[in-house]
Amino acid sequence: MYLAGIDLGGTAIKAGLVDENLKLVCKTSVPTGVGRPYQEIVFAMAQAVLSAAREKGISPDEIASVGIGIPGVAPKGIAIAINMYWHGIPLEAEMRKHLDVPVYIDNDATVAAVYEYHLGALAGCSVGVLLTLGTGIGGGIVINGKPFSGAHGLGSELGHMPIVHNGIQCTCGNKGCLEVYASASALIAMGRRCVIEQPKSMLHHLTGGDYLKVTPKMIFDCAKEGDRIALSIVEEYVDKLKLGICAIENALDPDVIAIGGGISGAGEFLLDRIIRASEGVGIFNGQKYADIRLAVSGNDAGVIGAAMLGLS
Amino acid sequence: MYLAGIDLGGTAIKAGLVDENLKLVCKTSVPTGVGRPYQEIVFAMAQAVLSAAREKGISPDEIASVGIGIPGVAPKGIAIAINMYWHGIPLEAEMRKHLDVPVYIDNDATVAAVYEYHLGALAGCSVGVLLTLGTGIGGGIVINGKPFSGAHGLGSELGHMPIVHNGIQCTCGNKGCLEVYASASALIAMGRRCVIEQPKSMLHHLTGGDYLKVTPKMIFDCAKEGDRIALSIVEEYVDKLKLGICAIENALDPDVIAIGGGISGAGEFLLDRIIRASEGVGIFNGQKYADIRLAVSGNDAGVIGAAMLGLS
Repeated sequence: MYLAGIDLGGTAIKAGLVDENLKLVCKTSVPTGVGRPYQEIVFAMAQAVLSAAREKGISPDEIASVGIGIPGVAPKGIAIAINMYWHGIPLEAEMRKHLDVPVYIDNDATVAAVYEYHLGALAGCSVGVLLTLGTGIGGGIVINGKPFSGAHGLGSELGHMPIVHNGIQCTCGNKGCLEVYASASALIAMGRRCVIEQPKSMLHHLTGGDYLKVTPKMIFDCAKEGDRIALSIVEEYVDKLKLGICAIENALDPDVIAIGGGISGAGEFLLDRIIRASEGVGIFNGQKYADIRLAVSGNDAGVIGAAMLGLS
Repeated sequence: MYLAGIDLGGTAIKAGLVDENLKLVCKTSVPTGVGRPYQEIVFAMAQAVLSAAREKGISPDEIASVGIGIPGVAPKGIAIAINMYWHGIPLEAEMRKHLDVPVYIDNDATVAAVYEYHLGALAGCSVGVLLTLGTGIGGGIVINGKPFSGAHGLGSELGHMPIVHNGIQCTCGNKGCLEVYASASALIAMGRRCVIEQPKSMLHHLTGGDYLKVTPKMIFDCAKEGDRIALSIVEEYVDKLKLGICAIENALDPDVIAIGGGISGAGEFLLDRIIRASEGVGIFNGQKYADIRLAVSGNDAGVIGAAMLGLS
């Protein structure tokens, strides 16, 4: 038997099958076509699974379950994914019209955490947490091998813990969320301000003064070169991220906090700073708190992780 | 068979036995004597259990387990309880010298949450959270009927989620923790400032200008009378507590958040304000988030809840 996994993104539907050794045996990708009726998108998702299977000579009967990672949540199988314009789509029921097997749906960061638990940085954790630092901040929690998304499937939104009272407005409606200070977007905004306000900075030089050219990599590269201004941006960024780690350690006390998402491309340079800044944020002095590590992830993590939802 | 429960506090050791219907069948209380060698305190704890049993004619053989709630944590059975001057006491091992049955130790707020799960406000929750608003803020998390304290037993310290960047110094070493804004102590501090700074306030009048006389009840009583200044204190207090509820909803998405501790004595007056302030703090608009309720607790909740640790 095989577990099907679907990674639903704003651009592409990636789908594949995983065997009993958790190896991806086939995969395919088709455009999502955001804006189409959801029935068409779900049909395309099911067809992607079936066509990947067909190419390997796997019959639909050999598919035991379908796991789907979505850029949103799906309490009771009803999907809410703002960027897909989905505000209550019966995703589970619609998928079962095409593939009549158990369907598991979860947030893409939760799916990524499930992947890390089975094959990556959260392996062996009784409590594992993944923070994906990207356009926003996603959170994934795995407890005793099972994804944890709360009582209604709305939880593990760790980017929306408030860390600054009356802080910057967040797209979620609240103010001062971790996400508005410690996402890639937040870092880019800091870099842009630097280009505009600090004409002598290395970032200004690198972008030719065009603040729209700022990338997180550029900021980290300048910081690695020892540029004082870029270093202070990274420090300010880490200082805010630390508050998220503080909340996670004191509330959830995980074995491991894995750092994923685009920002984690800064590697050990960033990781070392996060670890150093987070020393002692857990309230019991001298106790062993979470190891902080880089996520392993990889290209097919979204598909494999989604398939793994069928394990629990 | 019976489950023994011990509620270890700074003043008293309360102990009792619970039968298979979770009814307290006997109890006793002895002074803690903080500062004595821990061996003496643990001996007194075990003796308290045995003497309560003896009075009911229950033999030591009929005790299936001992649960202990402590004002601290006990990773791997090693207790850390600052107010007891315990910085690594082998509590589990020491207790087993006297009562050779499985010993379960957890934080007193977690124990209170276990009680609420079995007999109170968290009944039937798949994810239940208790906030005890007292001298500090304690947190208790119950997931699928089991107390959740993280990978190392250091978690569910929900009072130490940071909500104000570079905020007020907390005793834990961090700044801006929820506890320094939304504990009873924080509310009292706000009331004291009012007595000092607002000679025309009802609080000033009630205390005769002696700020040391301020109690949370006094502040709530003035607010209930419609005193504008007291009302604004309550509002500011709730505005900060809301940030903790926001973090809890977005991270843990519980079925119920129960409000306990001394502050919860303010009853519906406070609860209504907390519920109103917390509307919409969960990031998915229109979705069902936690019910917020008053904890049930009661006098023997600490002993009964501790005994219930033996259930999981």
